[in-house]
Amino acid sequence: MSEIEAKVKITPRSEDFSEWYQDVIAAAELADYAPVKGCMVIRPNGYAIWENIQKILDQEFKKTEVENAYFPLFIPHEFLKRESEHVEGFSPELAVVTHAGGKKLDESLVVRPTSETIIYDSFSKWIHSWRDLPLKINQWCNVVRWEMRTRLFLRTSEFLWQEGHTAHASENEAEKEAKLRLEMYKNFVEGYLAIPVISGQKTENEKFAGALRTYTFETMTQDKKALQSGTSHNLGQNFSKAFNVKFLDEKGENQFVWQTSWGVSTRLIGALIMAHGDDKGIIIPTKIAPVQVAIVPIWKSDEEKKEMIGAAEKIVLKLQDVKFKIDKRDQRPAWKFFDWERKGVPLRVEIGPKDLEKNQAVCVRRDTGEKIIVPQSDLADKLPEILEEIQKNLFDRALKFQQENTHEIGSWEEFKNTIENKKGFLNALWCGDSSCELKIKEQTKATIRCIPFEQEEVLGQCVHCGKHAKYKVIFAIAY
Amino acid sequence: MSEIEAKVKITPRSEDFSEWYQDVIAAAELADYAPVKGCMVIRPNGYAIWENIQKILDQEFKKTEVENAYFPLFIPHEFLKRESEHVEGFSPELAVVTHAGGKKLDESLVVRPTSETIIYDSFSKWIHSWRDLPLKINQWCNVVRWEMRTRLFLRTSEFLWQEGHTAHASENEAEKEAKLRLEMYKNFVEGYLAIPVISGQKTENEKFAGALRTYTFETMTQDKKALQSGTSHNLGQNFSKAFNVKFLDEKGENQFVWQTSWGVSTRLIGALIMAHGDDKGIIIPTKIAPVQVAIVPIWKSDEEKKEMIGAAEKIVLKLQDVKFKIDKRDQRPAWKFFDWERKGVPLRVEIGPKDLEKNQAVCVRRDTGEKIIVPQSDLADKLPEILEEIQKNLFDRALKFQQENTHEIGSWEEFKNTIENKKGFLNALWCGDSSCELKIKEQTKATIRCIPFEQEEVLGQCVHCGKHAKYKVIFAIAY
Repeated sequence: MSEIEAKVKITPRSEDFSEWYQDVIAAAELADYAPVKGCMVIRPNGYAIWENIQKILDQEFKKTEVENAYFPLFIPHEFLKRESEHVEGFSPELAVVTHAGGKKLDESLVVRPTSETIIYDSFSKWIHSWRDLPLKINQWCNVVRWEMRTRLFLRTSEFLWQEGHTAHASENEAEKEAKLRLEMYKNFVEGYLAIPVISGQKTENEKFAGALRTYTFETMTQDKKALQSGTSHNLGQNFSKAFNVKFLDEKGENQFVWQTSWGVSTRLIGALIMAHGDDKGIIIPTKIAPVQVAIVPIWKSDEEKKEMIGAAEKIVLKLQDVKFKIDKRDQRPAWKFFDWERKGVPLRVEIGPKDLEKNQAVCVRRDTGEKIIVPQSDLADKLPEILEEIQKNLFDRALKFQQENTHEIGSWEEFKNTIENKKGFLNALWCGDSSCELKIKEQTKATIRCIPFEQEEVLGQCVHCGKHAKYKVIFAIAY
Repeated sequence: MSEIEAKVKITPRSEDFSEWYQDVIAAAELADYAPVKGCMVIRPNGYAIWENIQKILDQEFKKTEVENAYFPLFIPHEFLKRESEHVEGFSPELAVVTHAGGKKLDESLVVRPTSETIIYDSFSKWIHSWRDLPLKINQWCNVVRWEMRTRLFLRTSEFLWQEGHTAHASENEAEKEAKLRLEMYKNFVEGYLAIPVISGQKTENEKFAGALRTYTFETMTQDKKALQSGTSHNLGQNFSKAFNVKFLDEKGENQFVWQTSWGVSTRLIGALIMAHGDDKGIIIPTKIAPVQVAIVPIWKSDEEKKEMIGAAEKIVLKLQDVKFKIDKRDQRPAWKFFDWERKGVPLRVEIGPKDLEKNQAVCVRRDTGEKIIVPQSDLADKLPEILEEIQKNLFDRALKFQQENTHEIGSWEEFKNTIENKKGFLNALWCGDSSCELKIKEQTKATIRCIPFEQEEVLGQCVHCGKHAKYKVIFAIAY
């Protein structure tokens, strides 16, 4: 990391949230825009977060009988066309390979925007009888969706994700699976990324192209918008019919399988930044942080340097299950503090000559800025405690923010005023009509983010058209 | 896994090695050809091997200060052209995106065949001073090289790999790095995949397009050909000059960095199959096997089933660091034995009612077929021992095969005879002239696989042209 990069300034959130977001990413060296329009370079600091996300989710998948595999990057164009909603939904975003090996291809190839079609072609060869079900496959890969307006991590032409794909013998099993995966995501995002989520079903307008039903979880950003952070789809038999994925059931009859697909992407890193970051930069929750504790020895002379680094090395010997880094760089302490802050490391431990004299260390929490003086003999116990508190505090703080910015809306006037002046999540009654939903979007830019799973008895009128309401839903301006 | 697939027959190696290879892959469900020409689907059994390869190598990389990152799939065509040898080498194999987002692109994009150019564009922005060096970056990703003749794992239009890229302040450091990585690969392939390798430098004809020097390691297949299994390149300043990757040295002067790149791919799985497989199928060495021990309880009645599975579960409770699977499937024992054999699991443990009576279990080694009766109380100690022996035996067996099929060649007649009748590795003297090397290739299809690092004093004449010899090299027919 060079001096030049160290000079990155972070625009305050209150001034320009969008600039702030860009600045935070640059300051923490998480990602760059690539020379190819809309694509990103994920830098080591950003990629290390993604690796932790992968590691934890991959373990969860494997615990629940999901196997990893890898399917081709290229999909014959014809495959996409077999499911009419699917091709319609993805056509505007496709990148197309027309030439390869020095020749024009007979049939052009699509760079996968998602892999339902190419994977279910394999499923049709792998699945024969009920004994082969359920089949649960996941792949970690890159996908391409050509986007006009891009933003690092949130919307880029290429991004990294995992896509799970399952096949089941019954509709009921597929439905359970789709909901199980959403629950798994929710637990991960709340438990590890410390971001509270709202979850539920997407409306017809907002569902995945080709799905029967899409389940989603959304997070709130500090500019009070909604961010769709992951989805799980009950695909019904839409794709199994298009790709002829059949099995012989126990009675010896041929049936089409019932399917699901579900995914989360590098967008989660964007969600994390937008949920927790402050004007000093990103704040990474303990459980997902590549470095949890930055230990900064402070010295003036070469002799002190040796002594302080020695003291730091003594401390880490006693640490268990803590990911730490001792900062031995020849830079001023203030510069180092600043550097670890903007990199979002949850806890900083400073040890200078005076601390050593007093057998103590100074711990500084990234989330609150609080300084905690800890006797060196207590550090091994105390650091994990503080780290846990940070994890908890980040979640609580984000939950409070979400709750404070969630509004019960009774009238159309109130709806318009709230969206215009307050934003956030708007709980409102809705008639269930797609065209009414679209009119609301046209007038306010707000969309229905989800129909929460638990619906109390819905009594009243649609907030917009005044017709009999079917659901209480959550509206918001979405990223 | 269905009954239909269970019927896959494996062609004996002696009959048709190429068919044997295909059959082994199908029988073990490692990979399929994809509907897109030349691409492959890596099935869960194959992908699990790749995941183990990744896990071990990734740890090694991280121990040696390599950080992971991710760079775009697409490369502006213009980037490739900046290094003239590089573009010439890769042009015939490129897949090109000409349309995206419903429009023709102003500049067509190349799907990465390797990422030197796009990564070094980033390096030119990240590196400023000598403090930023060395920079060591790796990415795990997919790459595309449009191939005419494809073979699963060995040569497919898309494959998975890792590519390491480093930048250094001096030529000497870069040279050391390139050799370190080759050594790391060699240790991994010999130590984990149990495949002996020969290593050395590539000739000018065979080196990487754009490299100063390419180092390679090659393995021998059971049909006595050479398989280039991984390479490491000293790139000199070829790319740093093309991409303007400069640093201020300690004297304050601008210098171009010295670079290396190095990679191994899913081809290693092909190397593994071709080194160890037998007429029953793949044999996976212990240290890389996703399942090391298949425990097969044998029963006739439902009561026996419960009892035998219970006994198996008791056994595994005592196992430490052994990856096992208890086979509870309702299939005949013989079918299960056959199934684990063709899946290449190194050790099978059978427990039937008679074994339980005698407090024993029957262990069957996949590499030798040997049956070993072990008292149940000894299993926890004995299984790891046998597993280690299998690992060792596979390496020893492959080394013996390689040695038996390595020939010292004194004359051109002997060379031609050996290549035609015996194949294998041919140690022979060579003049060092590229055109002579090409003539040998034209006449025999044999190429120089490497110039071994350790050259004794070379005395004599080139095996082909009779001129003064410069090197003793290894010739072979290559995959």
